[in-house]
Amino acid sequence: MSNNDSYVIGVDLGGTKIYAVVADRNGKIIATAKKKTKAERGFEEVVKRMSKCIFKAAENAKLNFEKQILAIGVGSPGPLDLKKGEVIETPNLKWKNAPLKKVLEKLTGKKVVVENDATVGLIGEHAFGAGKGAQHVVGLFIGTGVGGGVIVEDKPLHGFNENAGELGHMIMDPNGPQCGCGNNGCLEAFASRTAIEREIRIAEIKGTSTKIFKDQDRDKKIRSKRLANAYKKGDSAVKKAVEQSATYIGYGVASLLNIFNPQVVVLGGGVVEAISEPYVDMVRKVAEKNVFKVAIRNVKIVPATLGDDSAALGAAVLAWESIEK
Amino acid sequence: MSNNDSYVIGVDLGGTKIYAVVADRNGKIIATAKKKTKAERGFEEVVKRMSKCIFKAAENAKLNFEKQILAIGVGSPGPLDLKKGEVIETPNLKWKNAPLKKVLEKLTGKKVVVENDATVGLIGEHAFGAGKGAQHVVGLFIGTGVGGGVIVEDKPLHGFNENAGELGHMIMDPNGPQCGCGNNGCLEAFASRTAIEREIRIAEIKGTSTKIFKDQDRDKKIRSKRLANAYKKGDSAVKKAVEQSATYIGYGVASLLNIFNPQVVVLGGGVVEAISEPYVDMVRKVAEKNVFKVAIRNVKIVPATLGDDSAALGAAVLAWESIEK
Repeated sequence: MSNNDSYVIGVDLGGTKIYAVVADRNGKIIATAKKKTKAERGFEEVVKRMSKCIFKAAENAKLNFEKQILAIGVGSPGPLDLKKGEVIETPNLKWKNAPLKKVLEKLTGKKVVVENDATVGLIGEHAFGAGKGAQHVVGLFIGTGVGGGVIVEDKPLHGFNENAGELGHMIMDPNGPQCGCGNNGCLEAFASRTAIEREIRIAEIKGTSTKIFKDQDRDKKIRSKRLANAYKKGDSAVKKAVEQSATYIGYGVASLLNIFNPQVVVLGGGVVEAISEPYVDMVRKVAEKNVFKVAIRNVKIVPATLGDDSAALGAAVLAWESIEK
Repeated sequence: MSNNDSYVIGVDLGGTKIYAVVADRNGKIIATAKKKTKAERGFEEVVKRMSKCIFKAAENAKLNFEKQILAIGVGSPGPLDLKKGEVIETPNLKWKNAPLKKVLEKLTGKKVVVENDATVGLIGEHAFGAGKGAQHVVGLFIGTGVGGGVIVEDKPLHGFNENAGELGHMIMDPNGPQCGCGNNGCLEAFASRTAIEREIRIAEIKGTSTKIFKDQDRDKKIRSKRLANAYKKGDSAVKKAVEQSATYIGYGVASLLNIFNPQVVVLGGGVVEAISEPYVDMVRKVAEKNVFKVAIRNVKIVPATLGDDSAALGAAVLAWESIEK
């Protein structure tokens, strides 16, 4: 791959891992690199690890970093100050007013653009995945939490303080379970993997049989793959909890269809990736029953297609746009 | 007012009345006219009445209709086909695929532009009222139903099938009361005047004292003014029902702040107009408690300021834009 073409690097900054892709203008990934985040070591150290991951990705692509990498895009947990490229606050990484763009630009010598992680995920799917060709797209990413993003007329929705798109915190029932954000009955509190796990544990205590803890330390978090396997085996407690998640995502999608009337709803994240079509199908059925006909006419509700690459590729899109401006 | 200046006419087409305003480019109303809708007489007759109301408004303004009226904007119940200017369906008027734009253009000889009634209400407030100067505005109009509209970057949100903005049909509790739309637990089913009335009647049956039916036939619908008077007198059943309405609008506003992160939330419609600040204040308090801090920072939650004129003025804005294109 040692040529003279130019590329950008897109980075997906997660709570547990950093993932970088080297991509061309058409979203073709020519190399990748991964590193553990090690969030406990603090902001400066994490950004150093990001820069190392970025250099490694360019090296894996056999590129001259100096000459052939034009810019860097980063998808980061938020809320963010997009203009400054600062992380205002993030519970996962325990950062506050962290100048991510500034420090990463200094370490790499490249222009850096920072965007909300769920939003870049949707930007990636909009540019190269399940939302390709649609002007209006809504995305829900069901993992540890429920992330969201919105594309209106081909542009990400940012809003007044640049913090639009927190779709996981729509209130689905004010008397519902407490959410990680402190409020009650958010979509996330019904539908995230964390909520699914809570429901399984409650069901077990109440006497519903489950074998999901059989082969693992029961204090360990349940990963999406394990969840999907138990679901496919018909484990009662797991089935019920996953169905609750999909049902509430379905109600949420119905609301979002009435609110945004998008052309495509993209469902992604660990839970959707692992269970896939049965999950998406449940969402579709509930959404169809609870929405105005005109707001779902010719609308697609589909799984994300870029998997782990969506956020890094979306960040790459922003990197390209930053140098084209 | 007999001058040579040019004007447009904005029309608010409601289930019970037609209201037309003659307005200049700055939203100054120089004359108005009103007519009963008489929906029971059918589409053709209602459009004829609209044209008469339009001519009457121009006459009241002492204008030469032919020469001084440039275009006509109409706010209509929906869903609509905006490009064709057709009403796809409307429960209030019992129309189906009604070619409103075409027939009204024929009757008036002027260019006609048609838009959803709640959306024009918000366009009016955005141009000349409570949302003036803000790029991102969300509007909720609490009357017989709960209408909604959204302005994103100074433009109304339309979506794929042009039916975005049905904010009254966000699901607030899937096990909640049935909504007029057939689904359960929509914001409208908790917060509209219809819902308030239902709650008062239920409370009375259950033994809560109320004097609201004292001076009126108890089979008659409760109007907003009567509601506001009873609320101000501290009528128990009324107070509780109004508080439920404001509380759920507060939850809805919290969700909408997390979703859109607007700069201004405008609350309008008969219920808000009649009760005003106490209602808006309840909404504010609930919203503040249930939203991300960053999504409400410097955000205003305020009553609409144009009253009955908002929709007609919003329609006038669209009429101006249609001739400037």
